[in-house]
Amino acid sequence: MQGTISEKIFSRTSGKNVSANDFVSANIDYAMAHDGTSVLALHSFREMGISKVWDPEKIILPFDHLVPAATEAAAALQKNTREFVREQGISHFYEGGEGICHQVLPEKGFALPGKLIIGADSHSCTYGAFGAFGTGVGATDMAEIFASGKLWFKVPETIKMTVDGTLKKGVYAKDLTLYLVGKTGISGATYKAVEFYGSAIADLSVAGRMTLCNMAIEMGAKSGIVPPDDKTFAFLKGRAAADYTPVYSDPDAVFCREKYYDAADIEPQVACPHEVDNVEPVLKVAGTPIDQAFIGTCTNGRLEDLATAAEILKGKTVKVRTIATPASRSVLLEAVSSGIFETLVKAGVSFITPGCGPCLGAHQGIIAEGETCLSTANRNFRGRMGKGGNVFLGSPATVAASALTGEITDPREFL
Amino acid sequence: MQGTISEKIFSRTSGKNVSANDFVSANIDYAMAHDGTSVLALHSFREMGISKVWDPEKIILPFDHLVPAATEAAAALQKNTREFVREQGISHFYEGGEGICHQVLPEKGFALPGKLIIGADSHSCTYGAFGAFGTGVGATDMAEIFASGKLWFKVPETIKMTVDGTLKKGVYAKDLTLYLVGKTGISGATYKAVEFYGSAIADLSVAGRMTLCNMAIEMGAKSGIVPPDDKTFAFLKGRAAADYTPVYSDPDAVFCREKYYDAADIEPQVACPHEVDNVEPVLKVAGTPIDQAFIGTCTNGRLEDLATAAEILKGKTVKVRTIATPASRSVLLEAVSSGIFETLVKAGVSFITPGCGPCLGAHQGIIAEGETCLSTANRNFRGRMGKGGNVFLGSPATVAASALTGEITDPREFL
Repeated sequence: MQGTISEKIFSRTSGKNVSANDFVSANIDYAMAHDGTSVLALHSFREMGISKVWDPEKIILPFDHLVPAATEAAAALQKNTREFVREQGISHFYEGGEGICHQVLPEKGFALPGKLIIGADSHSCTYGAFGAFGTGVGATDMAEIFASGKLWFKVPETIKMTVDGTLKKGVYAKDLTLYLVGKTGISGATYKAVEFYGSAIADLSVAGRMTLCNMAIEMGAKSGIVPPDDKTFAFLKGRAAADYTPVYSDPDAVFCREKYYDAADIEPQVACPHEVDNVEPVLKVAGTPIDQAFIGTCTNGRLEDLATAAEILKGKTVKVRTIATPASRSVLLEAVSSGIFETLVKAGVSFITPGCGPCLGAHQGIIAEGETCLSTANRNFRGRMGKGGNVFLGSPATVAASALTGEITDPREFL
Repeated sequence: MQGTISEKIFSRTSGKNVSANDFVSANIDYAMAHDGTSVLALHSFREMGISKVWDPEKIILPFDHLVPAATEAAAALQKNTREFVREQGISHFYEGGEGICHQVLPEKGFALPGKLIIGADSHSCTYGAFGAFGTGVGATDMAEIFASGKLWFKVPETIKMTVDGTLKKGVYAKDLTLYLVGKTGISGATYKAVEFYGSAIADLSVAGRMTLCNMAIEMGAKSGIVPPDDKTFAFLKGRAAADYTPVYSDPDAVFCREKYYDAADIEPQVACPHEVDNVEPVLKVAGTPIDQAFIGTCTNGRLEDLATAAEILKGKTVKVRTIATPASRSVLLEAVSSGIFETLVKAGVSFITPGCGPCLGAHQGIIAEGETCLSTANRNFRGRMGKGGNVFLGSPATVAASALTGEITDPREFL
């Protein structure tokens, strides 16, 4: 097998040597659907008239979007999926409260180097932080995977993005990510894989790489991948759910585009309404009043994110309503034992159950018409958190600093 | 002034000596509305064409029912109430996350002996735990209070309930309360005040008395009152928001009925679907499968309730999805610092933001048709937690024990 990381993963999973733009039928290593999409997938699966899923050990079903059940409809749909789990003997089912799917899969050791992981959720590209090819599909495609364990793909071309240098104080993985999305544009990487290189990427924590790869889809990318290194292996130690073989792009791999960035050029960034690539340095929009602050999600709900917010909020009180969600129960427990949770609650932050909640305007923090939320999430589309609302995106530091002042604020004022 | 506690409170607040069945116009000491009812109250208030509320220091507005905002409609209504708060200069406004109204008022020192406290919520009788006359009214009555500070009442007759003796191990304030509701019936005390006496009542903690008085409405009572004692005064020390004068029934006060109970007769109790007075000893319904367990609410969301649950759940894992809500941020912080929060999260409990949530089927834990929830809340009406669902009510110990087994379980098996 040869070529890019994506070409190698599709070569292995299709059983032949393939290159970018080839069409393949690939064997899926792990398939994921959450409470929001599983119900549609299993409806389509049942319509096929097939009695048993391809492999009940390879289907992972975490509940995260509307947990605890927010409506009667959600309760009914979740009940339906639980019945499917029992009927099919699916062993990797996670009740609401365990965490957000894109955090649960890595924590449980399913996000592994070299694996092909398909999720019925657009941010399934998060798993690329571990050298996997992770991507999102619709629920009917997921039904096909439930039935056969296979799906067709066009093997993507790969963009090589290199970020060298050191991030400045007050600049985090989220700022780097927003900066790259701004430079690339929301359709600048459509149907490409993006491989990330350079010293600034190597310096990112595993959590930071998850933030970065999580938002690859916001450039239109099929997948965002960080080549696995010692940090990856350390995270996976004692956790990996299966054997794995890391794959790397060959020295002569063909990239369709190569881009270079200097980390030192990056200021704290904010994505402004209503597109993720509408990115500005925070100083350009500082002073914009906000009604709500939101820290968490699959993009920025890990311990280092909550720790950064706590560093800024410690001993102070938020000025606007501020909601936080740890990405998982495990993160919540780490936040409790480290005192971060207590610091944030004392500052006036309201925690919700680990899950997706307000990120997609599902519940637990909808904003009203004319209101503005500054969020650590990955999307700020028109009406996403409530019809007629405005969503800005920033790092946990920027959101925490802004929660204290009630307006978009450069976090370096508090560091 | 003479007579019962209620007669004395209405005599003071109406400025003349009144007796049971007199009609009075009373001056309200504190008025409370939450996010669910304030919006209706302020709508009616605005329709009156009055520009200013009677006293912005005496109106208390905690957000608890749909927090963080669960829907676009809730977000819009909450925004509307926040504008009212700013416009009227209401100083005792509490954002979502501060806690449930019936916990927030006592914590902030508004639930005081001898006061007349009216809330736009049926469980406003909770304040009787402090020797206040607390009762609930509809939103249009609340609008009248916003405008004038007054409301008319028929002074209620009073039932004297005495519970002597000692509660057995595994029997808590909630069991005592359910027992009394079962004995009295849901309309057995309609429009009466109930005063609670006896050694078993004296032995109850302040939290236990709140559980008891909270559910006086479930007997139809206008108010449930525990005469204030040293426990009351200790709780209020350094917390009382105003001066207060405790009032007590005179030795010759006229009670319309007197009832005596022996605490030793009480077993752990469960209220079965779909009425609160459909009460059985837990052993009679033990083995009934449950789908969800819920610990919290204004009835049983205080530290001693969470502590009891933690005692049973420590080192174990729940078998059914289990949701908990502390009654307030303050309770949450106590639960964190005492390790109770960590114990419960480790056992698989999902915490929601302090608030009402699933108790009334608003969000954060709706059950599906055919599902059963065992809850520490105060009501089990048909469809309350979701259409077609069944709700049983029990103590935190009973709910915790049942969460472990997946069926209604006598908590003494785990004590």
